[in-house]
Amino acid sequence: MRCSVVAVGTELLLGQIVDTNSSWIGERLAAHGISSLLQVKVGDNHQRIVDVVRSALVEADAVIMCGGLGPTHDDLTREAIAEVMGVELVLHEDIAQVIREMFESRGRRMADNNLQQAMVPVGATVIHQTRGTAPGLICPVGDKVIYAVPGVPHEMQDMMERAILPDLRARAGEAGVIVSRVIRTWGESESGLNERLNPVINELEKIGNPTLAFLASGWEGIKVRLTAQRADEQQAHALLDQWQGKVHDLVGEVIFGFDTETMESVVLDILRSRGLTLGLAESVTGGLVSGRLSAIPGASDVLRGCVVSYASEVKYDLLGVPRGPVVTEAAAVAMAQGACRVLGSDVGLSLTGVAGPTEQEGQAVGTVCVGIALPGEPAFATTLRMPGQRDQMRQMSVISALDVLRRRLLAT
Amino acid sequence: MRCSVVAVGTELLLGQIVDTNSSWIGERLAAHGISSLLQVKVGDNHQRIVDVVRSALVEADAVIMCGGLGPTHDDLTREAIAEVMGVELVLHEDIAQVIREMFESRGRRMADNNLQQAMVPVGATVIHQTRGTAPGLICPVGDKVIYAVPGVPHEMQDMMERAILPDLRARAGEAGVIVSRVIRTWGESESGLNERLNPVINELEKIGNPTLAFLASGWEGIKVRLTAQRADEQQAHALLDQWQGKVHDLVGEVIFGFDTETMESVVLDILRSRGLTLGLAESVTGGLVSGRLSAIPGASDVLRGCVVSYASEVKYDLLGVPRGPVVTEAAAVAMAQGACRVLGSDVGLSLTGVAGPTEQEGQAVGTVCVGIALPGEPAFATTLRMPGQRDQMRQMSVISALDVLRRRLLAT
Repeated sequence: MRCSVVAVGTELLLGQIVDTNSSWIGERLAAHGISSLLQVKVGDNHQRIVDVVRSALVEADAVIMCGGLGPTHDDLTREAIAEVMGVELVLHEDIAQVIREMFESRGRRMADNNLQQAMVPVGATVIHQTRGTAPGLICPVGDKVIYAVPGVPHEMQDMMERAILPDLRARAGEAGVIVSRVIRTWGESESGLNERLNPVINELEKIGNPTLAFLASGWEGIKVRLTAQRADEQQAHALLDQWQGKVHDLVGEVIFGFDTETMESVVLDILRSRGLTLGLAESVTGGLVSGRLSAIPGASDVLRGCVVSYASEVKYDLLGVPRGPVVTEAAAVAMAQGACRVLGSDVGLSLTGVAGPTEQEGQAVGTVCVGIALPGEPAFATTLRMPGQRDQMRQMSVISALDVLRRRLLAT
Repeated sequence: MRCSVVAVGTELLLGQIVDTNSSWIGERLAAHGISSLLQVKVGDNHQRIVDVVRSALVEADAVIMCGGLGPTHDDLTREAIAEVMGVELVLHEDIAQVIREMFESRGRRMADNNLQQAMVPVGATVIHQTRGTAPGLICPVGDKVIYAVPGVPHEMQDMMERAILPDLRARAGEAGVIVSRVIRTWGESESGLNERLNPVINELEKIGNPTLAFLASGWEGIKVRLTAQRADEQQAHALLDQWQGKVHDLVGEVIFGFDTETMESVVLDILRSRGLTLGLAESVTGGLVSGRLSAIPGASDVLRGCVVSYASEVKYDLLGVPRGPVVTEAAAVAMAQGACRVLGSDVGLSLTGVAGPTEQEGQAVGTVCVGIALPGEPAFATTLRMPGQRDQMRQMSVISALDVLRRRLLAT
């Protein structure tokens, strides 16, 4: 099964919007064992859209069109598909009624052009909307197929998972289900992970199911994705459990979570489960650790707050760091203890370091000291070396410091 | 002049990397008055690359190829171009020498495959590298042209600005230079800006030079870009000055900066120029204001630090907020004053609000109170309503609060 993607919209070509939809679709197709041939961005021009789709269908078995399904005169996807299929567009009365009711339920007047979204090529099947007004389309062209989905990412993703990926798999003659599991890691490079997982990777290459892929995701860590194909969900999960175990045997100490868990959510969950509150003292990261933890709904159960001690005097006067150099493990320890005292938290986490552009106190750019104060044991600190320029260094410091805290909590 | 972009790399189709290069190129082409026809992502497959480029050249006058110029067996762009041109690849001895010397200067052994990067199609012109090892290429195909640039964004951007955009303009028979100016705004919606700038937009549509475009950029504000074409830079800047003045006459009060200035850099610059230091007290934004200000090199001249008072007790006990509701203007005033006192700053800026998912103290999600304490005048606060879900609400609060401070500083 070979698939191409056509993203429709002049705003994409002009760089006003980055086409992240195609990347998301490509990733999901790969996870379902479907090859990607081409991904094309085309502007709002009827003939050009028709030409691109016709040309894509020469080699591909399926074309997924993304965008151009709205109610304005710039939304040309339906007309283009009808021309490629060689059929007319007709009003789909059920869809029209859904659209009318959606406007009525919101107490808004429906402009007539909204009914354009209920026009469907003869012979096409509708993918019903659950989140917007424009339905998706499944349009057979001989033994090939064109799918059309809205350009709004969450509408597109919903229709892909609910209708298009299952339809593609059925057309490919694949029975059963595909289930993925993401194993989230921090503390080992992608090439290092690859090397250490080689026994598993070699075994999987022979049997082909599940598959294993790496996704480097910046300050979200490196993800290892296992994708299993089985007759039903239960069997797929059993297979994933088995191989997750093998991955764990080789690199278990760098695994911090699974699927939608993040380093922040994992740290907050551990603290919450122990009834502990957290106070932060940040210097080099300037509030980024606090900003990320507080992005998680419910963080207020755990997070008391943060002192960003950007000026040395704030470290000395508010946090009680002894006067002297501030990029040291001793300063990090004092900051973590100061955070507990000033913010009234059980646990203190601190970061002090050098983001650049130049070195500081003789410490190289990339140096970061992480301090941790836990109840009932001596505070301690450790020094890490971060890669990259200012932004990357700061982002890597955030996940690295949270990981130091996570490991310490699990060890106690 | 009509141009298409071909981005080469299987990792793009698999969604492991989002193709931001094409978007950047499309934006720059538009600014230089060059039309974009198609942007295509293709995998590392020789025949498919050749087919895509040949097909793109049917309609386009120029094709820009991005990626696939490295030293590995997956780097196929040079071979594909040679096949489309119908010529051989030959070793370019000067480039080979540059690559050898680059490795020698770093004291590293050069693997032989690196010389693959010095292979050039007969008839092509080289775009010399300033930042990496692989040179770019300008490859004539009849009266059309293929450009090749590396996929590393800063190398690609350098070659686009230095060689390809000028070459495209020369081919288009355009004399002179193109200069853009970005006018950065906050406080008015894109449609509102559009409406208020209608007199200027209508006038520009008649004369066509400079052009005006809007770029909505999230918590970086809405950008209005003027692009002028003139015989030389001085004349272009004079034209931009004239139209910037007209834009200023209509929407001057929402303009906060120009070109690479950001709301953060502007606020820091104003404070620095007055010898004032800044202390922050954040609740709803959890440290994001501090995180963004500290992202700017040199922020330490101005920024003393921040108290993230996520728990109400931290607001009461550390910042001196009177016990009671904490999403109020009174609480914001006390937080701003508390920030000055606790952090030893001249100026205090505070944010307290409701990010959701649910309302708090009877205040709706999206409510944010911004407090400001300036030396020698009474502290004050104002209440804003932010759009969106938790993340967007927090991001919009950051730029909005900084804008409140900026306006207040400029008014005093």
